[in-house]
Amino acid sequence: MKVLVAGAGGMGSRFALKLAQAGNEVVLAETWSKRLQSLQTDGLQADLDGQEVQLKLPAYAPEAVPRETDYDLVLFLTKSMQLADLVRILLPAFGPHTYALCLMNGIGHEQTLTKYLPRERVLLGNTMWTAQMTRPDHVHLADDGSCELGSLTDDPDQVKMAVTTVNVFSQAGLKAHLLEDPRYSVFRKGCVNGTLNTLCTLLECNVAEFGQTPLAHELVVKVVKEFAMVGEKEGLHLDVAEAVSHVEDCYSVIGEHYPSMYQDLVKNNRPTEVDYINGYVATHAKKYGLAAPLCELLTGEVHVKEQLQNAKNDV
Amino acid sequence: MKVLVAGAGGMGSRFALKLAQAGNEVVLAETWSKRLQSLQTDGLQADLDGQEVQLKLPAYAPEAVPRETDYDLVLFLTKSMQLADLVRILLPAFGPHTYALCLMNGIGHEQTLTKYLPRERVLLGNTMWTAQMTRPDHVHLADDGSCELGSLTDDPDQVKMAVTTVNVFSQAGLKAHLLEDPRYSVFRKGCVNGTLNTLCTLLECNVAEFGQTPLAHELVVKVVKEFAMVGEKEGLHLDVAEAVSHVEDCYSVIGEHYPSMYQDLVKNNRPTEVDYINGYVATHAKKYGLAAPLCELLTGEVHVKEQLQNAKNDV
Repeated sequence: MKVLVAGAGGMGSRFALKLAQAGNEVVLAETWSKRLQSLQTDGLQADLDGQEVQLKLPAYAPEAVPRETDYDLVLFLTKSMQLADLVRILLPAFGPHTYALCLMNGIGHEQTLTKYLPRERVLLGNTMWTAQMTRPDHVHLADDGSCELGSLTDDPDQVKMAVTTVNVFSQAGLKAHLLEDPRYSVFRKGCVNGTLNTLCTLLECNVAEFGQTPLAHELVVKVVKEFAMVGEKEGLHLDVAEAVSHVEDCYSVIGEHYPSMYQDLVKNNRPTEVDYINGYVATHAKKYGLAAPLCELLTGEVHVKEQLQNAKNDV
Repeated sequence: MKVLVAGAGGMGSRFALKLAQAGNEVVLAETWSKRLQSLQTDGLQADLDGQEVQLKLPAYAPEAVPRETDYDLVLFLTKSMQLADLVRILLPAFGPHTYALCLMNGIGHEQTLTKYLPRERVLLGNTMWTAQMTRPDHVHLADDGSCELGSLTDDPDQVKMAVTTVNVFSQAGLKAHLLEDPRYSVFRKGCVNGTLNTLCTLLECNVAEFGQTPLAHELVVKVVKEFAMVGEKEGLHLDVAEAVSHVEDCYSVIGEHYPSMYQDLVKNNRPTEVDYINGYVATHAKKYGLAAPLCELLTGEVHVKEQLQNAKNDV
């Protein structure tokens, strides 16, 4: 499979490395100039499951990606706020048989992708792999993980491509699973981020530490209820109890993990994706004439924390 | 005036020192054994407005306070969670002409005091002085401040005592002002704590830093609205715009200040008074069949932060 990985940060690097090691043709598109320079000069360097690896892959700024149109897949693993621009800039790389796959954190990316691409060309999913960018020239990839994806429509070619992608990814060790309703799954993952990612960032702790506090359960339930309320309006019926237990499974599965927004803001002083997580729920609740005060407050708190730290996107 | 200062922490020390320096008879009651020991051995030591002072005052554990009944005033400046016990233990110090004055942070102390004492014996107010306990044997008292107090009823003796107290305090340099409706004032001060104290504690910043963030105003308004909603049910009409501007005045007046809960939790790893601030609004909203989701979430977040730090009250 020929894959253009759009966004070669921590997560993009894991997928690129595993896919390339399994014999797929991988090309990288990266916005951050410091990172891009390192990729072009020294290749992709990572501590991959305990082993130092270095792999040279073609890497380009998005504007400079060669206008080949034989990519099978453009895999988006960038920061949420960069997605719209990146999709638009990479449109020339979409040939007649190219699919987009978005495995990014956050809700609402489906709307962004289908603004530029036909619904029949978009695969959606999410990943429970973790990744950490330690330096512009190094990523740290530990912990077990998995990913799941599916097609946005019943179009047979698209469904077939979803199955093929699952197989290719699994053969590469990425533990992929096919989703019947990827929108549902993305929303359910949104609950994980809207609780653990946000609260660990505000409270500066890891997932297990948060989970050990006696009040964690009550907070998780309250926030998930707001997600469910908005999901209902978007045709997604979220089982609150199930979604809560999905969140709470993370305490043991990825307990030592400091979630992505923690890494962005607390470690790297960069803006977070909270607008695509709790912020999505807050603004869409408002759109439907509802109130999601907790998501609204959490979004506000994260933004104040960003403002306090003068978070700057040095991309 | 003969004053028993119940709680010789940072704030109690300021009042005790200033009152004693102005010639009043001051006795200290202190629960924390480490602190008490230092008071008994070395006296009250402080950096008071830039000058090192040391003053020996009689200091006792609450149970050991001599059963004299000629105190004019028992001034409560302890932590909220200790108030009920302390009032009960100090009842033997209340003679026929002794008044209680509570200037503590937090809402609901009036109910605690009037459970043990007649309403006609209780003065209530609050203070904008700041204080910081640097070590068990040292307090740091900088910044300008003021305090305000009034009587809970129209009883002429009580009103007279409120006026006398204001005069004595002002003569001691404590800049006291008479309040017509102290309950209102306490609630209004509650808004300052429920926004700045809580958010600076969660976001680990000082008052000015929080005030400089573009989102501060919006967050303050939302939280103050919940206070106003509960106040209304308790016969206190809070002017939201006025209360908000009262909060925002603090950005310049006490900008460099790290509020009390920040000091308790972040600096000293002790539990906070949030249950008497946002927690009061959250539980009382519920009692009146209303919802105060922001105060509820903020209270929960502070408690999770306490639990994360294993905050232990080493009193």
